[in-house]
Amino acid sequence: MDSLHRLEEIFSRFPGIGPRQAKRFVYYLLNKSPASIKEFTDLVADVRRSTSECEKCHRFFFHRAQKTDLCPTCADQSRDRSTLMVVARDSDFETVERSGAYKGLYFILGGTVPILDKEPEKRIRLQQLLERASESTLTEIILSLNTTPDGEHTEKIVHEGLAKVSPARITVLGRGLSTGAELEYADSETIKSALQNRRSSL
Amino acid sequence: MDSLHRLEEIFSRFPGIGPRQAKRFVYYLLNKSPASIKEFTDLVADVRRSTSECEKCHRFFFHRAQKTDLCPTCADQSRDRSTLMVVARDSDFETVERSGAYKGLYFILGGTVPILDKEPEKRIRLQQLLERASESTLTEIILSLNTTPDGEHTEKIVHEGLAKVSPARITVLGRGLSTGAELEYADSETIKSALQNRRSSL
Amino acid sequence: MDSLHRLEEIFSRFPGIGPRQAKRFVYYLLNKSPASIKEFTDLVADVRRSTSECEKCHRFFFHRAQKTDLCPTCADQSRDRSTLMVVARDSDFETVERSGAYKGLYFILGGTVPILDKEPEKRIRLQQLLERASESTLTEIILSLNTTPDGEHTEKIVHEGLAKVSPARITVLGRGLSTGAELEYADSETIKSALQNRRSSL
Amino acid sequence: MDSLHRLEEIFSRFPGIGPRQAKRFVYYLLNKSPASIKEFTDLVADVRRSTSECEKCHRFFFHRAQKTDLCPTCADQSRDRSTLMVVARDSDFETVERSGAYKGLYFILGGTVPILDKEPEKRIRLQQLLERASESTLTEIILSLNTTPDGEHTEKIVHEGLAKVSPARITVLGRGLSTGAELEYADSETIKSALQNRRSSL
Repeated sequence: MDSLHRLEEIFSRFPGIGPRQAKRFVYYLLNKSPASIKEFTDLVADVRRSTSECEKCHRFFFHRAQKTDLCPTCADQSRDRSTLMVVARDSDFETVERSGAYKGLYFILGGTVPILDKEPEKRIRLQQLLERASESTLTEIILSLNTTPDGEHTEKIVHEGLAKVSPARITVLGRGLSTGAELEYADSETIKSALQNRRSSL
Repeated sequence: MDSLHRLEEIFSRFPGIGPRQAKRFVYYLLNKSPASIKEFTDLVADVRRSTSECEKCHRFFFHRAQKTDLCPTCADQSRDRSTLMVVARDSDFETVERSGAYKGLYFILGGTVPILDKEPEKRIRLQQLLERASESTLTEIILSLNTTPDGEHTEKIVHEGLAKVSPARITVLGRGLSTGAELEYADSETIKSALQNRRSSL
Repeated sequence: MDSLHRLEEIFSRFPGIGPRQAKRFVYYLLNKSPASIKEFTDLVADVRRSTSECEKCHRFFFHRAQKTDLCPTCADQSRDRSTLMVVARDSDFETVERSGAYKGLYFILGGTVPILDKEPEKRIRLQQLLERASESTLTEIILSLNTTPDGEHTEKIVHEGLAKVSPARITVLGRGLSTGAELEYADSETIKSALQNRRSSL
Repeated sequence: MDSLHRLEEIFSRFPGIGPRQAKRFVYYLLNKSPASIKEFTDLVADVRRSTSECEKCHRFFFHRAQKTDLCPTCADQSRDRSTLMVVARDSDFETVERSGAYKGLYFILGGTVPILDKEPEKRIRLQQLLERASESTLTEIILSLNTTPDGEHTEKIVHEGLAKVSPARITVLGRGLSTGAELEYADSETIKSALQNRRSSL
């Protein structure tokens, strides 16, 4: 296979990209100046080189000057070290951080476990999480997973493991109407939780 | 305009129906037997005739034998008469009832008030709601509206009116992750509420 | 089942309508005035009563004053009686007539034959078409069917039948770029035909 | 801005990519091995370096060993040199070649001219096309552009220019039903052409 088709093939494995868009990416790059191409390839190499996986929460983070083992969040002594939020992916971490509503620590599972999957430990960092949970003085572990079948299945697996090694309270995010929701289309589970969690208006 | 086009025009005003589908409806009916057509027109007339607006909650209900003023829900003495849930439409009522999570009474507002609307009282049954709220011995009024801009605007208007005439606690449904939600796409408001409303896992 | 749910069920069999929209239709009608309801049911009955299936082309047509056997198109002596266009449905007839490009007669097949269907004669008016084709002095029969797998399968069945009973030339619509098409997404068959049918620019 | 966000920004300018997917691309690359990253950046640099714009048809092509001025298609002496097909982009060239229906030469315009655009010569290689057309012994120039408003506007501009410098016949692709089309939704222009270009069935 020549470079052109090999590059197309590589782009077609990027998340959400099919063969046709992969081809467009190649043509897009062909039309770029040599300087733009150099900036792009330098950045890709640089970003990969300047990014580490935090040894505590397993999130990828960018270390400016010199390599460190802990990400800024895990290293931040002002954060509440008694609470650990378990999320599936780095992008979930970003969403929660952006909300400004949480001040504890995190653990990135690395994915979720599909319902019929036989080997959950190959999908998620279950062993590392259990070690992290047993060594620490946590009082609460919040499982912040998608409320999808895979997320709920993962919650079950993680809960079972954690309950054996940690005395911390294990919680999950509350259900309710999300912003922008239309009541008519809400399922009964959501309505039930939204009613239980109702609060004073305005 | 001949009957054919007039009927197309009427169908094209049905909710969610455009001119092309209206035309298909007409062809669909043309292919029906005279007996099916008669059943259909009889049912439309009958349903309209056998349906009343409940004078207490303003919901449409089907009265089998003879016309009554109160719908079965308002007439049901086993329901909790100290709580009133205000919803925008009959379809919202149905969604909440289907959940089985609520045992109080209802009030159908009849719609929501768009943000820039000048005459809210033409959009919703505000006056009737205030009368209903002032006459009764309610301890809580739950405003169950969509968590959309229009829904929140309506909540504000209704809250202001109710606060003047009723000593009841005015509440809204809790926010949180709805069933099937992906954490990554949740907005900060939803994350914040979901964290506040977190509960024990499993 | 009460009238309300029976009407919902009937609406949910309208083309393209699911149970939720069927329910909306019922609520929509409940909100209409008795006069509107009467206009609607009268129109449905009237349209069905005032519409006949043309005994020659099998299309449904609206006859104003008194019932006739032939639709205005089949009765129109100024149309070219040597050409017959076979279309699947009334809506195809309308699209072709709207174009103003065709001046011959029509025959409505009543549908298409799915590829694995065992009894095509139950899906389309094949027998009636063969009778129509054998009795007449046609010089060309144009099979104007969708260029989908079902359309092409139907073309094959109809062609085989017609070839046995009629000496007329049997044709199909030309392939090419449709209006609004993007060349990049055209399939090879379309490109090939578009090249063969190329014409002077402007 | 740090490298991470700069790379996100660059990815978000790739065709069809928004900020969220750009971020996913960066995370995707962070999870790749250093060897995969090196293959990717090497390929991008290599492809850009090993690709030339053909000086005759202006298409980008991959030259294996040493740089050449002509792409394989323009250099292929077995192709019909009396016919030139003008297409907007490299991807259109690929679609036509894949059909195997065309054996002449090509010219890549480099884009189309939006309807209200004041300076068409900045959008497309009009000057180069006119030079190419005047110097050669072409008998037919096929304008294979999208049948969209922009495509038709571009056809008009190109036609006017070509008519002044070349005696060749200027043609466009035939209109008709594309593969998979449903007759009901065809516009009148398409029906008209499909009728004119009709051909024997089967």
